[in-house]
Amino acid sequence: MGRAVKSLLKPRLDWLLVFVPAAVLLEHLWPEAQALTFVAASLAIIPLAGWMGRATEHLAERTGEGLGGLLNATFGNAAELIIALAALQRGLHDVVKASLTGSIIGNILLVLGGAMVAGGVRHKVQKFSAPGARSQASMLTLAAIALVVPAAYHYLGGREAFLHETGLSLEISVVLLVTYGLSLLFSLRTHRHFFTGPAAELGEIEGREAHAAPWSLRKSLLVLAVATALVAWVSEILVGAVEPAAKAFGMTGVFVGIIVVAIIGNAAEHSTALLAALRNRMDLSIGIAVGSSIQIALFVAPVLVLASLVLGPKPMDLVFTLPEILAVVVSVAIAGQVTSDGESHWLEGVQLLSVYVILAMVFYFLPAG
Amino acid sequence: MGRAVKSLLKPRLDWLLVFVPAAVLLEHLWPEAQALTFVAASLAIIPLAGWMGRATEHLAERTGEGLGGLLNATFGNAAELIIALAALQRGLHDVVKASLTGSIIGNILLVLGGAMVAGGVRHKVQKFSAPGARSQASMLTLAAIALVVPAAYHYLGGREAFLHETGLSLEISVVLLVTYGLSLLFSLRTHRHFFTGPAAELGEIEGREAHAAPWSLRKSLLVLAVATALVAWVSEILVGAVEPAAKAFGMTGVFVGIIVVAIIGNAAEHSTALLAALRNRMDLSIGIAVGSSIQIALFVAPVLVLASLVLGPKPMDLVFTLPEILAVVVSVAIAGQVTSDGESHWLEGVQLLSVYVILAMVFYFLPAG
Amino acid sequence: MGRAVKSLLKPRLDWLLVFVPAAVLLEHLWPEAQALTFVAASLAIIPLAGWMGRATEHLAERTGEGLGGLLNATFGNAAELIIALAALQRGLHDVVKASLTGSIIGNILLVLGGAMVAGGVRHKVQKFSAPGARSQASMLTLAAIALVVPAAYHYLGGREAFLHETGLSLEISVVLLVTYGLSLLFSLRTHRHFFTGPAAELGEIEGREAHAAPWSLRKSLLVLAVATALVAWVSEILVGAVEPAAKAFGMTGVFVGIIVVAIIGNAAEHSTALLAALRNRMDLSIGIAVGSSIQIALFVAPVLVLASLVLGPKPMDLVFTLPEILAVVVSVAIAGQVTSDGESHWLEGVQLLSVYVILAMVFYFLPAG
Repeated sequence: MGRAVKSLLKPRLDWLLVFVPAAVLLEHLWPEAQALTFVAASLAIIPLAGWMGRATEHLAERTGEGLGGLLNATFGNAAELIIALAALQRGLHDVVKASLTGSIIGNILLVLGGAMVAGGVRHKVQKFSAPGARSQASMLTLAAIALVVPAAYHYLGGREAFLHETGLSLEISVVLLVTYGLSLLFSLRTHRHFFTGPAAELGEIEGREAHAAPWSLRKSLLVLAVATALVAWVSEILVGAVEPAAKAFGMTGVFVGIIVVAIIGNAAEHSTALLAALRNRMDLSIGIAVGSSIQIALFVAPVLVLASLVLGPKPMDLVFTLPEILAVVVSVAIAGQVTSDGESHWLEGVQLLSVYVILAMVFYFLPAG
Repeated sequence: MGRAVKSLLKPRLDWLLVFVPAAVLLEHLWPEAQALTFVAASLAIIPLAGWMGRATEHLAERTGEGLGGLLNATFGNAAELIIALAALQRGLHDVVKASLTGSIIGNILLVLGGAMVAGGVRHKVQKFSAPGARSQASMLTLAAIALVVPAAYHYLGGREAFLHETGLSLEISVVLLVTYGLSLLFSLRTHRHFFTGPAAELGEIEGREAHAAPWSLRKSLLVLAVATALVAWVSEILVGAVEPAAKAFGMTGVFVGIIVVAIIGNAAEHSTALLAALRNRMDLSIGIAVGSSIQIALFVAPVLVLASLVLGPKPMDLVFTLPEILAVVVSVAIAGQVTSDGESHWLEGVQLLSVYVILAMVFYFLPAG
Repeated sequence: MGRAVKSLLKPRLDWLLVFVPAAVLLEHLWPEAQALTFVAASLAIIPLAGWMGRATEHLAERTGEGLGGLLNATFGNAAELIIALAALQRGLHDVVKASLTGSIIGNILLVLGGAMVAGGVRHKVQKFSAPGARSQASMLTLAAIALVVPAAYHYLGGREAFLHETGLSLEISVVLLVTYGLSLLFSLRTHRHFFTGPAAELGEIEGREAHAAPWSLRKSLLVLAVATALVAWVSEILVGAVEPAAKAFGMTGVFVGIIVVAIIGNAAEHSTALLAALRNRMDLSIGIAVGSSIQIALFVAPVLVLASLVLGPKPMDLVFTLPEILAVVVSVAIAGQVTSDGESHWLEGVQLLSVYVILAMVFYFLPAG
């Protein structure tokens, strides 16, 4: 989930909180119903992620702009990160990578495509800043390259290559984190004025939702702590049920990770990007969708690689499967092209959604392992 | 062949109709001269395709703008579709796919490159609508992705993947047809004004060719029926002679399909796109070349997959060979780049032609099978 | 090294000429110290290349604009060409290809990235001509395609393909040289006015360096001959020491070729592109970096293929390794994207440098052979 985008859909989704106890109860009282447990845990994550996001925003308002921006950026995909950490701990590296891939392509194809269709039905042509979009597109290209290179090394380097694989993934992770850190420096400090537009717009959209006064520091921290703890708990349950649930649905674990988990994890982006597009704020809409994909690739993925050194049963590398890489590359290619001209219409949304559907079908049919 | 572009070269090419009886006679009287039969059938297709195109246009004028546009778009590549259907019936899937690949790369490299050189020699810099070109480029990217994905599934999915291959190709074909249908809805109805320029320009260019009054509905239908029947007949002959003719020329069937058949099949586009470029109508020129490639990938290819279910000895999938896919991907990449800046000069045409020559050399040397 | 860019850093680097005798002495007196010989020879090349460049420029001023431009363009990468010829003669095809790859990616990632960071730290946003940059980007794409295609043929064509490999590489080389020749015709004759800006700017920057009166024809030729002979001599030494030096450093020969040799070979571009960026002349900076990469791919590489027919122990083909091709493709992709919007800032430089570091790490770890 992208930074600072959660506050919109929460009030309407809080009833989903009933799935928090439901998931816990199901897991303990009806351990064989893992498909049901999986569904309940998935739905429970959505409102919890919303509360984490809201608490982060209120905290950010208290801590001033610079630190606040950093907080928002860092906790933007916190829920997804926690789910991935839970999967990491169980050594489910395939599921972790699948959910990362799914988040990246889900944001730039499903979320952005949906937003362009929704906005394009109401507005004939929607304008946005072409330089801004292209700048994000280069960052996306960098993200795609960072995923392609370790896999290329793995598949082309021959047997001897395996010896250095973990080392290479670690080093690339450090490069990505440094680049991500510099991009925050860029957007939060040296070139902050580039990005004031979207933030102001977001506030405006949020304003219509009866934005309350900022919470106290204490309340913000408390809510953040409770929501994070609950997300961690439910994530445990979710991850434990992924494989059996996938089997029950007749799907592979990878498909569930790429499509199902990613759709759930991006519910917030989807809703906010859609609303922004409907209100003809395409800069914001694109910023949310593309920004979230960038954050997954340049922040969440390398953090997971580093975390796997101390957390999981064995270190995780950055070697994604070839179908995953292909999916990311084609998504980045078409998203870059669609956003390069500074205007969108519904057919461009249809193009993105078509690619998403085609990729989803491939992952559905792709044999496990 | 692209929509609504045939009327230009017909009067000058009608003498080629002598090759219709020539091909028929050769096939029956001199069955061992299959290289000669192939050449005659190839030449015979050109004027017949022209008559089909002319009949479609006259029909379109009688049926009103909306239905007329649909007719033009649907019958635009009718001759190529008929040739491919004939090859399909004989189970020559390799030749079908080669001719599809050849049409796609021929249009965006040879036709567009030739037009840019021809126009660029007369005009120092030629301007065209960059947003329009980029919108077509995204559609081309989608087309390339649609060809890459099934092959990726085939080569990466392992042995188990084969079981689902036909199903996957079918489903992707449906997605492509839906997307193509939506793109017609876009260009013929919701965003029709985007495209009035080129159509008007085409009329203007055609005007100089002493455009006659529209035919009666009856005459249009009659000419269309006769020309279609003849194309079908000659296509049978052409397809039957492809393999032996290729052997006689010392070429592979794939090379003949990709280069020779595609050049013949795109004679009309080539001539019209060149004329348009010479008259400094680059929007039209690009529209013809790129539009035709899009139509092949998003309409003709999936229709052939669906048709193969009832027509051929076995269903055809969308799994192109890796060299074919590479050719499409690099063509789309350079065409997208060359057209993204809204202006062209002769060197850009040279760039496209260079890539075409390099690809043609590879396909010439590529071992059969 | 790009054309007409050498004059800047010479005066400051002439002290490096001491490494010319040092390299010669080391090679003869201390033959086992090959790592040291390698370092000395590397450093000796830098000022010699500078003198070759300066002589070429003075010669160009004497011979008039058309022929002068041709001279500058042809001798632009003369030092790199001579080093590669020396390696060719010893049959070190892997090192030749590695240094070509390294030059291409070094120029568009390291040189351009460094320039964008240096310039971006001083200037918030730097503008340049987007159409100009995109035109160079298409040429770069053509260059990437020219490297991808022979490798694709090699790896996809099966056993039979090997028979035609040298023939195919030769033919592609001819196509590339013709295209390169036409691009010179374009930039030096038919569309010369497109390029006056950068040339004037270069003069201006050079002006501050107390530009002397042009040398006589005789002096120019003499300096050119002596410098060329010395470069050839030192190149012999350099190339002879590559493999043992690599072993001494614990690196593979390919890594030394791609990273070390390329950095040395591009010292001139690096320095001039950086200076230009600091003075907010991004058009010039991009022209040097990208232009040099284009020249390597479309001129130096095919010349080497042709030269290998008469010079080396066996003909060299254009079949680069898959990691090399991947490196070129991703570099071209991100450079194209970063330069497409007509403005740069320091974060874009960081993006290019990140990709360079990631690629360098991969080549460092990649097992030899």
